[in-house]
Amino acid sequence: MISEDICKKAKQIDEIIESYLPKEEGLANTVMEAMNYSIHAGGKRLRPMLMMETFAMFGGKDPEKILYPFMAAIEMIHTYSLCHDDLPAMDNDEYRRGQKSTHAQFGEAMGILAGDALLNYAFETALESTPSDSVFKALKVLARKAGIYGMIGGQVVDIESEGKPDDVTMDTIRFIHENKTAAMIESSLMIGAILAGAEDSDVQKLEKIGSDVGLAFQIMDDILDITGDSETLGKPVGSDEENGKVTYVSLVGLRQAKEDVATISSRALDELLGIVGSTNEHGVFLRDLIASLTYRDR
Amino acid sequence: MISEDICKKAKQIDEIIESYLPKEEGLANTVMEAMNYSIHAGGKRLRPMLMMETFAMFGGKDPEKILYPFMAAIEMIHTYSLCHDDLPAMDNDEYRRGQKSTHAQFGEAMGILAGDALLNYAFETALESTPSDSVFKALKVLARKAGIYGMIGGQVVDIESEGKPDDVTMDTIRFIHENKTAAMIESSLMIGAILAGAEDSDVQKLEKIGSDVGLAFQIMDDILDITGDSETLGKPVGSDEENGKVTYVSLVGLRQAKEDVATISSRALDELLGIVGSTNEHGVFLRDLIASLTYRDR
Repeated sequence: MISEDICKKAKQIDEIIESYLPKEEGLANTVMEAMNYSIHAGGKRLRPMLMMETFAMFGGKDPEKILYPFMAAIEMIHTYSLCHDDLPAMDNDEYRRGQKSTHAQFGEAMGILAGDALLNYAFETALESTPSDSVFKALKVLARKAGIYGMIGGQVVDIESEGKPDDVTMDTIRFIHENKTAAMIESSLMIGAILAGAEDSDVQKLEKIGSDVGLAFQIMDDILDITGDSETLGKPVGSDEENGKVTYVSLVGLRQAKEDVATISSRALDELLGIVGSTNEHGVFLRDLIASLTYRDR
Repeated sequence: MISEDICKKAKQIDEIIESYLPKEEGLANTVMEAMNYSIHAGGKRLRPMLMMETFAMFGGKDPEKILYPFMAAIEMIHTYSLCHDDLPAMDNDEYRRGQKSTHAQFGEAMGILAGDALLNYAFETALESTPSDSVFKALKVLARKAGIYGMIGGQVVDIESEGKPDDVTMDTIRFIHENKTAAMIESSLMIGAILAGAEDSDVQKLEKIGSDVGLAFQIMDDILDITGDSETLGKPVGSDEENGKVTYVSLVGLRQAKEDVATISSRALDELLGIVGSTNEHGVFLRDLIASLTYRDR
């Protein structure tokens, strides 16, 4: 049931994002094509979905004018990060989600420029929201969580840790997960709440929930790389061990890692329940969505 | 006299920018080092200077809280663009202003990430301004002029034109100059004016002036590549012809190009005079500064 709901909402979100994509026109049209190609490569639209549901959960009004630009913006930022992660100097991936990665399709220079363009266009898009104190606050969260004190910071440490297993401690692993993955989950939840006019104290709680969800999601990723079925996952398993990569699981063991996912997830779910109670329709969906991210087999 | 004034102001601007740079700390400190290294590589701080003088020309108040974050932000955006332009997949430059380029110093992955980080941090920094309608408007200009309808658009067409001299027409050359260079001059002037509370009609005039200044500056660059003295310029001359590059000069000839610079520059200077008159101290400085950009031997 939850997955059917997710599909329906993802389709709606695709339409919202689509309406903010640049027209492919003018002399510089190649970069617009490359941007749209990257976005159309798909994905679960998880971040805008979390944002939309949090906004609804707090009874936000006028989503078209206030929320939708931010939903498109956060997906653009997520997409630029994948676009640059795939570059030869980074992870050097020729394929993503079964189609050629942006640089493989458009050349390396255009891979860099399309990423730059998506990041920049994310701010142009978010700035289409009707100005208000909340929108200004949301812009600050959007920028901070994507930058050196968030996603980029995590990516930097991840890149620097490669091939240096002896330097990687639990602090390193947590830093990477909490920044590279969790920061953008945090901002999705926080921005949805801020734009709906939620109290600061609730926004702070959502930041902590987002941090837990991101961490649990990534630990689950490490677990599935060992216990998962490559057919169900749609990607090879055992790659972390093969590459001698230090992961949460290699540091604490499989059993402890599974326990930690359970602890962290239920803490996040309880905290969410504490904010909205058990009767808010969107709160229920959000709890189910979060549960499906951390208790999963793919 | 003007160059002494410029030096003094550039020093002041360096201090302002410095105060907005990230501390080099935490696990992701390498990217902060790389960001600061790129910014410290120097340059004329032309864009923040244009912004500061335009703000003063319109009698802007409270620059510390409103203007300074944008001055730092526009220099960060300019610096990120150089950082990415130097990458192996782009212009592949190992040196810039006599020191190693960012990717040559920190590795290619960090060159990409430092650029991303500077672009993102530019928005974080601009968002430190005290919120107001003007600040919101300035943010929109900052974002738009740096993106696909501005600087990135110009860079895309520049990269695509390389090695295809037969495809390059006057329209292409003008598009590149008006976007890759002029767009950020436009936004510097426009943002200075917007933050000082100037009328929309004046902001529009400044956009046109910025466009002219950027174009004249770039035509002058093409001219100096032929007529300049490599010692005065501090870089080799004749490289455009050697590389078979189509330039403004190769399309219209040296004589016409010089006439065009004179026409475009004096149009911009007259327009500026029309806005503020001849007695505004900052207007005079701005006119001199603009004149020094287009009538120059290096």
